[in-house]
Amino acid sequence: MIKLIFALSTALIMPISYAADWQALPDTAPAPADNPTTKAKVELGKMLFMDPRFSSTGTVACNSCHNIMEGGDDDRQFSMGIHGKLGARNAPTVWNAAFASTQFWDGRAASLEEQAKGPMTNPVEMGMANMDEAFARVKAIPGYAVEFRKAYGKDAMTIDNAMKAVAAFERTLITPNSPFDQYVKGDKKAMNATQVRGMKKFAELGCKSCHSGAAFNGPSLPDGQGFFAKFPTYSDSKLESQYELIKDKGRYDLSKLDSDKNMWRVPTLRNISLTAPYFHNGTVKTLPEAVRVMAKTQLNKDLSSRETADVVAFLESLTGEFPEIIMPRLPGKSGETTIN
Amino acid sequence: MIKLIFALSTALIMPISYAADWQALPDTAPAPADNPTTKAKVELGKMLFMDPRFSSTGTVACNSCHNIMEGGDDDRQFSMGIHGKLGARNAPTVWNAAFASTQFWDGRAASLEEQAKGPMTNPVEMGMANMDEAFARVKAIPGYAVEFRKAYGKDAMTIDNAMKAVAAFERTLITPNSPFDQYVKGDKKAMNATQVRGMKKFAELGCKSCHSGAAFNGPSLPDGQGFFAKFPTYSDSKLESQYELIKDKGRYDLSKLDSDKNMWRVPTLRNISLTAPYFHNGTVKTLPEAVRVMAKTQLNKDLSSRETADVVAFLESLTGEFPEIIMPRLPGKSGETTIN
Repeated sequence: MIKLIFALSTALIMPISYAADWQALPDTAPAPADNPTTKAKVELGKMLFMDPRFSSTGTVACNSCHNIMEGGDDDRQFSMGIHGKLGARNAPTVWNAAFASTQFWDGRAASLEEQAKGPMTNPVEMGMANMDEAFARVKAIPGYAVEFRKAYGKDAMTIDNAMKAVAAFERTLITPNSPFDQYVKGDKKAMNATQVRGMKKFAELGCKSCHSGAAFNGPSLPDGQGFFAKFPTYSDSKLESQYELIKDKGRYDLSKLDSDKNMWRVPTLRNISLTAPYFHNGTVKTLPEAVRVMAKTQLNKDLSSRETADVVAFLESLTGEFPEIIMPRLPGKSGETTIN
Repeated sequence: MIKLIFALSTALIMPISYAADWQALPDTAPAPADNPTTKAKVELGKMLFMDPRFSSTGTVACNSCHNIMEGGDDDRQFSMGIHGKLGARNAPTVWNAAFASTQFWDGRAASLEEQAKGPMTNPVEMGMANMDEAFARVKAIPGYAVEFRKAYGKDAMTIDNAMKAVAAFERTLITPNSPFDQYVKGDKKAMNATQVRGMKKFAELGCKSCHSGAAFNGPSLPDGQGFFAKFPTYSDSKLESQYELIKDKGRYDLSKLDSDKNMWRVPTLRNISLTAPYFHNGTVKTLPEAVRVMAKTQLNKDLSSRETADVVAFLESLTGEFPEIIMPRLPGKSGETTIN
């Protein structure tokens, strides 16, 4: 009975077929029970996210590689950390990361809270010796004590609370109301004919077997239980060598299980036209080529240039509305530097 | 008669002595005749200022070293550009730079417009081969064409217009209404007793002979005609060697005139407590020590620790109100990267 009512009420808003097959992006992201999103946490998290002083050189912030003024990434093949050091994988977007059930390309962090700990002590990213040293920088800044107190009350300055704040901020980084979302909600003029054709082609090709759900990154799963796929699935020696597709073994490097070879988290397609270059190794520079490579390696299909252009047009319709974000004021130590 | 009326009307607002000796920071900055400030220019300039893609690596923006979320600088002794390369001088704050009649520590740029050209092609800063290469990055991004058109009309995408936009944005980076400003405008409770004592000491010591005017950076001069001072003026071999004060010859490196040896632009003291470390070479890490060094090398005076603390408290009263700034959305190339 409850199910029936749900189906009926959904039907009032949009045709059943779209309700079932295509999902608009929610306006808010779910938060874990032990980290409900609050305004004070979001404000603190925004400061920490934008603050470069927690890198050894004082030059690399979360935002350096996950630039929220851009597509939530950095326009580079591999991110560049302190002293121009290069990472080994393409920076995933932080926009809508709240809708991923696991974090990093290989899913090695179960949550945004856990992910946030990684880069600070990574020697090619923010390069701090350890988390205590990184957090000592935060603790040394009196203004941060005020912000932690606002967010968590007394004795609140802990690494865990810092990570929770960053995660709370990231849960606000959502881009709803794309042309696709408007279309799915009933405005049939929101997408043009090419985009609609591309949408049908996307479904027909089978892209949705992996890129399903509101964020086009797979089904909703319990937190930490990521949705992974083998890439490449179909061997194509030319593409493999051209784009070095099998060199990085993905989850295998973590588990050493043969079944994890070249397994990757299925990334979101939201705002995908803003996050070139593409794939875990950023070897594919353009979206049309990324679509062609995907069709060939994952679905064993050769797309015509028109089909490719249609799918690209559809993917462009997934670019949403970016919330207005006020720059934080980063607190300082009066008359003293933080970077020594 | 006009003068008399002016004096009288001023007297109605505040005591003559303050009107004559101490000046509140204006809310707006003057703009040159050929670059009046407009909303569209400011928006475009903000984008360009925040955009790291005009550095060779795509990682260094104006804001990297002149972080407007902090004191308008980077908390470092020397700024760090691409590949971790170090500059040779401490980054001056961009806050209230609009009130400087010349730019850079050595005054080698007459205007904000001219200054903005420097860092992009500096090999240790943004590292582009030349301005054309840097501007090609801007031109390649369709969204920027729209913004240039909004700001300047048709055929507007020129390097000069880009520099004008950055300068127009920088002219909005003003921090009025500090405790000092409120005090000078008549609110005698805005500064505490220590700060008022420090204010008197500051005047009595003679600091104002150089640090005069609303921005505490010297008298108003025609654009480009900077106000310079020799530093150190009084030789103190201990401080000179401890802080390497005479190694960098300042304006001499430009002019090769003996009279320019160790001559420097007098920097603003606005928000000085937020911009440690101090001096052209960033060798002095704290504000109290900077005050002590200044008194000794410029005025040949030894300050007691209480006098130093008072002056520091006064300088802290120069921290103003920072305007709320909305992060720009940096336009991209759909499905393509800008950094190759």
